Amino acid sequence: MNPKKILPLALIPLTGLSAQNTVTSDSRPNIILFMVDDMGWQDTSLPFWKERTPLNERYHTPNMERLASQGMMFTQAYACAVSSPTRVSLMTGMNAARHRVTNWTLEKNSSTDRKSEVLQFPEWNVNGICQVPGIPFTYEVTSLPQLLKNSGYHTIHCGKAHWGAIDTPGENPHHFGFEVNIAGHAGGGIASFYGEQNYGNRVDGKPSPLQAVPGLEKYWGTETFATEALTLEAIKALDKAKNLGQPFYLYMAHYAIHIPIDKDQRFYKKYIDGGLSEKEAAYAALIEGMDKSLGDLMDWLEENKLDDNTVIIFMSDNGGFSTSTQWRDAPLHRQNAPLNSGKGSAYEGGIRVPMIVRWPETVPPNTRCNDYLIVEDFFPTLLDMAQVKSREVKQPVDGISFLPMLEGKQTDDNRRALYWHYPNLWGNEGPGIGTTSTVRKGDWKLVYYYETGEKELFNITEDIGETTNRATQKPRLVQQLSKELGEYLRNVEAQRPIFKTTGKMCPWPDEI
Amino acid sequence: MNPKKILPLALIPLTGLSAQNTVTSDSRPNIILFMVDDMGWQDTSLPFWKERTPLNERYHTPNMERLASQGMMFTQAYACAVSSPTRVSLMTGMNAARHRVTNWTLEKNSSTDRKSEVLQFPEWNVNGICQVPGIPFTYEVTSLPQLLKNSGYHTIHCGKAHWGAIDTPGENPHHFGFEVNIAGHAGGGIASFYGEQNYGNRVDGKPSPLQAVPGLEKYWGTETFATEALTLEAIKALDKAKNLGQPFYLYMAHYAIHIPIDKDQRFYKKYIDGGLSEKEAAYAALIEGMDKSLGDLMDWLEENKLDDNTVIIFMSDNGGFSTSTQWRDAPLHRQNAPLNSGKGSAYEGGIRVPMIVRWPETVPPNTRCNDYLIVEDFFPTLLDMAQVKSREVKQPVDGISFLPMLEGKQTDDNRRALYWHYPNLWGNEGPGIGTTSTVRKGDWKLVYYYETGEKELFNITEDIGETTNRATQKPRLVQQLSKELGEYLRNVEAQRPIFKTTGKMCPWPDEI
Repeated sequence: MNPKKILPLALIPLTGLSAQNTVTSDSRPNIILFMVDDMGWQDTSLPFWKERTPLNERYHTPNMERLASQGMMFTQAYACAVSSPTRVSLMTGMNAARHRVTNWTLEKNSSTDRKSEVLQFPEWNVNGICQVPGIPFTYEVTSLPQLLKNSGYHTIHCGKAHWGAIDTPGENPHHFGFEVNIAGHAGGGIASFYGEQNYGNRVDGKPSPLQAVPGLEKYWGTETFATEALTLEAIKALDKAKNLGQPFYLYMAHYAIHIPIDKDQRFYKKYIDGGLSEKEAAYAALIEGMDKSLGDLMDWLEENKLDDNTVIIFMSDNGGFSTSTQWRDAPLHRQNAPLNSGKGSAYEGGIRVPMIVRWPETVPPNTRCNDYLIVEDFFPTLLDMAQVKSREVKQPVDGISFLPMLEGKQTDDNRRALYWHYPNLWGNEGPGIGTTSTVRKGDWKLVYYYETGEKELFNITEDIGETTNRATQKPRLVQQLSKELGEYLRNVEAQRPIFKTTGKMCPWPDEI
Repeated sequence: MNPKKILPLALIPLTGLSAQNTVTSDSRPNIILFMVDDMGWQDTSLPFWKERTPLNERYHTPNMERLASQGMMFTQAYACAVSSPTRVSLMTGMNAARHRVTNWTLEKNSSTDRKSEVLQFPEWNVNGICQVPGIPFTYEVTSLPQLLKNSGYHTIHCGKAHWGAIDTPGENPHHFGFEVNIAGHAGGGIASFYGEQNYGNRVDGKPSPLQAVPGLEKYWGTETFATEALTLEAIKALDKAKNLGQPFYLYMAHYAIHIPIDKDQRFYKKYIDGGLSEKEAAYAALIEGMDKSLGDLMDWLEENKLDDNTVIIFMSDNGGFSTSTQWRDAPLHRQNAPLNSGKGSAYEGGIRVPMIVRWPETVPPNTRCNDYLIVEDFFPTLLDMAQVKSREVKQPVDGISFLPMLEGKQTDDNRRALYWHYPNLWGNEGPGIGTTSTVRKGDWKLVYYYETGEKELFNITEDIGETTNRATQKPRLVQQLSKELGEYLRNVEAQRPIFKTTGKMCPWPDEI
């Protein structure tokens, strides 16, 4: 190499600049998808219901309020009831019934289904998704970040991935077209949020737990809470990104506010002083620490004059955790009130999540959209936002772009049917938690339980808490929704459990 | 998440395994491209010439000997005279005259050309290559690792990248489809090989030099020489790769044996004891440390029973450094003897490099191939090896697959013309170092100097040392080669320097 000082080329007169060198600046918007883990619909001071609730009073999320004042809140945004199915749908545009990553993933070739005496669960895609053929128990896909990258976006992953099992290609965000990966791996939680505990990594030579998070080594032994460490690293990546001459896609996927509900000391004392129990103060602090991260990213955009051309989407991957007193105070299943139940449930508490979109010039500020949508819709919507023309993908895409909603146009999306499919059994118990398929159409929602054959019908518009099963009152509607649900599931080749006693497949919802 | 122990799926009877889940094991070969930096043709105990030389006696490279005994040596393998042009040709299949990354890259929008009183150099692609449009002073390409990744390979970069300037998309191997990046960035050298010096990274808050290597933090403050640190990390990546169910491509691109010629203490004393000077002992130790890395990788393949289905290609990016007594003993320009000159030169010492290919079943062991080839030929050859069918790329491909040579077939490749183009000026001076274009065809080689209009003609077969300029004796051959060279350069839209005094373009070789 030559240590001599070099003249900047701009000082040298042109000698015939080639077409290759012509600057064609890419003015497509930057996109930040701010994805929170296990955040319930009420885990915020921003009211997503028609009324302010006691939980809205309890939590402080000033930056979500700031974001909402600049954009559009979605009051009926849906995810799946657990993490991997939601995240896979986001990456692929497929409904969970089709991609078959219907429960959460972790170890290779191993199911995370709770054992049932009655049902034998199908061989779902326990290894998640991947972009290459021939990997057992995976669905081969073309991912959202890959398409964005191919179209010229600089793609950054920060935080939780949770699309593929350990030692499979899908465990690593780089395999899906992310050019930067900060702390993403197979794990769907964090062993510890504490820098003092090295985020769960052991340094005594013994094996670290599977949920010990990689890539934050520089913060080990410091007091940096994981939420903050991820934010600092994301901002470093953005500082690099702004020089590259490309639009960027930042998938900011916090490990917060998933368990363990560790104490974010930046905010914990405030909630203790406000009278909350230790557990609930820790939860509130975990939320506010996440909210600060959102604010820090918004500040960065403003400081760098990139706020005008950057979309921010706020989202959660499933409802709030509500099934154990290990982390939250009793009563259980009320932590997402007025919604019933929480994470893992087919009820609204498990699947309805907070969502906000801010996009100057396109999305009118300080607005609410009551149309419903579901997480696989993100896939075509983000491709629309990014003006991606080349969309050849390996998988069928079920999602529908909600760009019209963002533009404030009238849609008839609330007449469409949304589907959930969970031929599995989650770890904890509670209302609406079971081996279920579910359809929402208009005001109505049908939940079908494979183990018992039971069907529940709720009018979500009138009875958001799903307290009154109207199935016996409305047999024709039950039949009609059952038929639609059954036809859909067969059409996408959904999997079904088997009755252990008979060895026979459980009936589809329209076969009983 | 559910902490309960999980049944391996294999224990659960099938309930209708989908086609997606059928294992279709990918049996294409793994590929390791072992690329050494600035390694001269004689920097080895393995004789690439028809005779053993004193340099062959001086250096110890037992693993290169081991590799050669299992494969094919190439005695006339060519690269460009400096790093980035070679590496870009490898990544793209383009000749340097076409891709216009004709000199080495480092800082954005800045040329590394030495200043000339006579010539003004063209606006070459000082920012290197990238995979996105609209980046000034770059060539937009589809890269070799991207094609390998798209076809299902797991792609690992280890060591030096040097394809793109700082703060451009091309600086980061992840942007080119590498799924793992170990210590690769914009820099084309390493600030220090010493772990004790953190590989050049400063920890006192002052800015690190641009050649401080990232990503090896865990070895900071240890006695781990960079060559060893890279090898350890590469093997970790291979330990992961072997579980993924994909063939892998490892681009093992050592920072060795580029300057600084730091002392690899694992081997240094041996050469001092053998009577070498400190500088030459350090150089010999740097070589043997690199050779040990090769051996460690070969050992790993054998231990993991992957040696049968893994191609290893050994290559260097340009000739040995021979232009300064700061690092090597005098006499200068003799460090690649019998070749004349070294790195930066159009003479054989600058461009002829050691190359070996080992591929059981395909390449006959312990053989030599005297056909010539050039580094852009690697692109189509590796795609052939990997059986990549989808080869749609953004750039024209100049390289020609040398798979027939590997299979021991007769070729007429020694009747084809090879081209070099360097419309720049390197940092140091020496024989054949200048602003040149060069053609090799059959036994003959013509070097054209833009500054003086001078032409040199050598019979490479009879006069490998390029001691006798035959231009005046063979005017018709000079004219014929000049024409061929000029036509080629115009055809690929090569760039030319300008005479500062007149402002006019320098003539093409066939215009003078």
